[in-house]
Amino acid sequence: MKPDLIATRQAIQQGLTTSAQVAEECLALAQSAACESVFLQLTPDSLRATATQVGIHNSPLAGLPVSIKDLFDVQGQVTAAGSVVLAQAPAAKRDSAAVSRLRQAGAGLIGRTNMVEFAFSGVGNNPHHGTPKAWDALADRPAGSDPAGHVPGGSSSGAAVSVATGAAFIGLGSDTGGSIRIPAALNGLVGFKNTARRVPTLGALPLSTTLDTVCAMTRSVRDTILAHEILSARQVPASSRPLGSYRLAIARCVMQNDMDSTVEKAFERSLQTLRAAGAQIVELPLTELEELSAMMATGGFSPSESYAWHRHLLDSSAAQYDPRVSARILRGANMRAHEYMDLVQARTQWIARMQKTLETCDAVLSPTTPIAAPLRSSVAPGAERDAEFFRVNGLLLRNTSAVNTLDGCAISLPCHQPGELPVGLMAWHGPMHDDTILQLALVLEDTLRGLH
Amino acid sequence: MKPDLIATRQAIQQGLTTSAQVAEECLALAQSAACESVFLQLTPDSLRATATQVGIHNSPLAGLPVSIKDLFDVQGQVTAAGSVVLAQAPAAKRDSAAVSRLRQAGAGLIGRTNMVEFAFSGVGNNPHHGTPKAWDALADRPAGSDPAGHVPGGSSSGAAVSVATGAAFIGLGSDTGGSIRIPAALNGLVGFKNTARRVPTLGALPLSTTLDTVCAMTRSVRDTILAHEILSARQVPASSRPLGSYRLAIARCVMQNDMDSTVEKAFERSLQTLRAAGAQIVELPLTELEELSAMMATGGFSPSESYAWHRHLLDSSAAQYDPRVSARILRGANMRAHEYMDLVQARTQWIARMQKTLETCDAVLSPTTPIAAPLRSSVAPGAERDAEFFRVNGLLLRNTSAVNTLDGCAISLPCHQPGELPVGLMAWHGPMHDDTILQLALVLEDTLRGLH
Repeated sequence: MKPDLIATRQAIQQGLTTSAQVAEECLALAQSAACESVFLQLTPDSLRATATQVGIHNSPLAGLPVSIKDLFDVQGQVTAAGSVVLAQAPAAKRDSAAVSRLRQAGAGLIGRTNMVEFAFSGVGNNPHHGTPKAWDALADRPAGSDPAGHVPGGSSSGAAVSVATGAAFIGLGSDTGGSIRIPAALNGLVGFKNTARRVPTLGALPLSTTLDTVCAMTRSVRDTILAHEILSARQVPASSRPLGSYRLAIARCVMQNDMDSTVEKAFERSLQTLRAAGAQIVELPLTELEELSAMMATGGFSPSESYAWHRHLLDSSAAQYDPRVSARILRGANMRAHEYMDLVQARTQWIARMQKTLETCDAVLSPTTPIAAPLRSSVAPGAERDAEFFRVNGLLLRNTSAVNTLDGCAISLPCHQPGELPVGLMAWHGPMHDDTILQLALVLEDTLRGLH
Repeated sequence: MKPDLIATRQAIQQGLTTSAQVAEECLALAQSAACESVFLQLTPDSLRATATQVGIHNSPLAGLPVSIKDLFDVQGQVTAAGSVVLAQAPAAKRDSAAVSRLRQAGAGLIGRTNMVEFAFSGVGNNPHHGTPKAWDALADRPAGSDPAGHVPGGSSSGAAVSVATGAAFIGLGSDTGGSIRIPAALNGLVGFKNTARRVPTLGALPLSTTLDTVCAMTRSVRDTILAHEILSARQVPASSRPLGSYRLAIARCVMQNDMDSTVEKAFERSLQTLRAAGAQIVELPLTELEELSAMMATGGFSPSESYAWHRHLLDSSAAQYDPRVSARILRGANMRAHEYMDLVQARTQWIARMQKTLETCDAVLSPTTPIAAPLRSSVAPGAERDAEFFRVNGLLLRNTSAVNTLDGCAISLPCHQPGELPVGLMAWHGPMHDDTILQLALVLEDTLRGLH
């Protein structure tokens, strides 16, 4: 995998390369076959203008390329969220809060990335713009042996491949049920979902106003910390805590069910590696996780909250939606107000109970997804593959979405070996534990790198 | 009308009477004919124990009687909220936050007051426990000439009559659409609805979790300030601003429609008196108020939010509800989640627009209710009077509920003359303007007292 942002910034500061030169390399990658269906719009002029700006080398992001998921407003660009129904919408009058913070920190905007239409699944398909191929970070080529390629995970599909190929250093995205962490896991990247309230959602097209989280993926934990500091406009304290000082837990219940052999092998090996390096890992029952499916029986937040946003558009233009997306949004039409209130209340009480249980540890370790990326062909558009698509989607979202329901924070780190499909290890906790998770992630990454 | 709390506390401190003696006088009043149907439970032992406590004379409330609306938890008592369906519920294990604050400040608890079942109307009827008669504060007798009496207003019906008769000095209640201000207006009292977030609702049975406000009514503005300081655990700054320094406004639109002759006469005379005393009163269009009925077309907050609370109880025991209450709660069953979200969003935007308009003034003056209290017989239980009941209820709630939708604050002051039915003058503004409204209310009361 290509060098991370901090290494590249150092190389620039040492005069080994320039922001302008890196911009050209990234633009070339963005137009290569590996980035097929990854960018919906490239903005080379904007990128070059930033990269040649006076003093840009000394800014936190040094003018280096950052990709923007298609659901964020960028002044002068249309925000279509991977749809065709919004392709003719008026251009955004101003930057979203996240884009504005990145730009302020010296980001070069390379372009808008493809995504699952309206961010509504974890698989990464897009029938309008094509589905990017997952990147096999270890083989430095699209993942897997099948020429059809594996799904990239979603909804921030293009964001992940843009960072994995090296076309961008930071992929700005959003995570409502796993949309940063799933594609990070399936492309061998680091994906951090901060506590939602840490970063303003202003100017991002909503999926679930309750769960939407603005965050990013990168090629290293230190880049993730830098991106998070910029997006949340605060500093993450440095820490010298050794691995052995963290109270780590695993939850056999729910989170470790239904693992395929690829994930099981990588996950168990990672635990072994961590234990060998001195990590203390206890088992936590976390039976509270078993309550989630009953809590979501009336539909959960995303269908009802997205229906509130989409229904006028659906009235006029339902035929232009991906049927797998419109079907899920329409399920929100019939949810009753009192069911929604019950859900809000049940979630609040569940969070309180989970927080109490989680007090005994600094982080829980789980597989980010219980399965590795399926082949694109297995879930390609077509009603005959809908059942498989929804099965896979449910599995991919299961572990990550629990952290969104928890209003928590989580990081996905690569934990596979060369020749294996990418697998993510997720370290997570409840609300506002972001700093501990990020500090821990640095030592986890260090320890797991021995595997690669 | 009897002396207020601060005058009585002074008399006690001067040795002219004692808390114990006042307790006995109040208990006698509470058991007199004027308090018929006012108390659902009297607690003389608790009151006497407080009144004879060492040092109680020097506490803020000096052990003087405070009445508690039946929807507040008091340790050891059943919270039935005026219903029979909860009559056998377990006793509360601890005081609600409001009761605890009052007790801490030296309140003597005289008993639980009657209310509209589950607080669900502004008229004041209760088919289970009877409907208290409104008090004519000026004639020192139940209001009006009809021996059947006038409705007391609701939902804090018993609270109002307990304070108007002198059985209590403070009536603790709640205001979701006008439940403090309407009975205050109809009984010649001062009723203050603070900005909702000022006082915790913990331990109060909910009607609308969005709009519920814990507050109180008293016989003077200075008592209202004292009660508010205790309930909100903060101090209201003293002010020496003269009447002429306040920028007052009236809103001809909506708020002054449909006034009956009693209210119109009292309201116009009050404006005249205030102007003669130097008040500056401008007209504000406030056409935003005309949007409210469309915003509430899908049902508003109270039906859906109360249905979320009541539906299991309704499943098992609907026949034990007042049919006028259960009919309104059941209207909440069909509201859709997206309609509720729209309502939340429309309210947020409406509040922002209203706040901008209201920046030009310190308070708006309106009639608290556009009509004086109707006769109890005109709205007595019976399907043949339901249409009249709902018409009157809509009129009584119209002006007050707009302030709840605004998340604002408002005080109702008596503004009628001897021989007239009580009429309330409401001074109101947006969120967190409580202190200005209370400071203004002191000078308004001073000026309007010239009328009595």
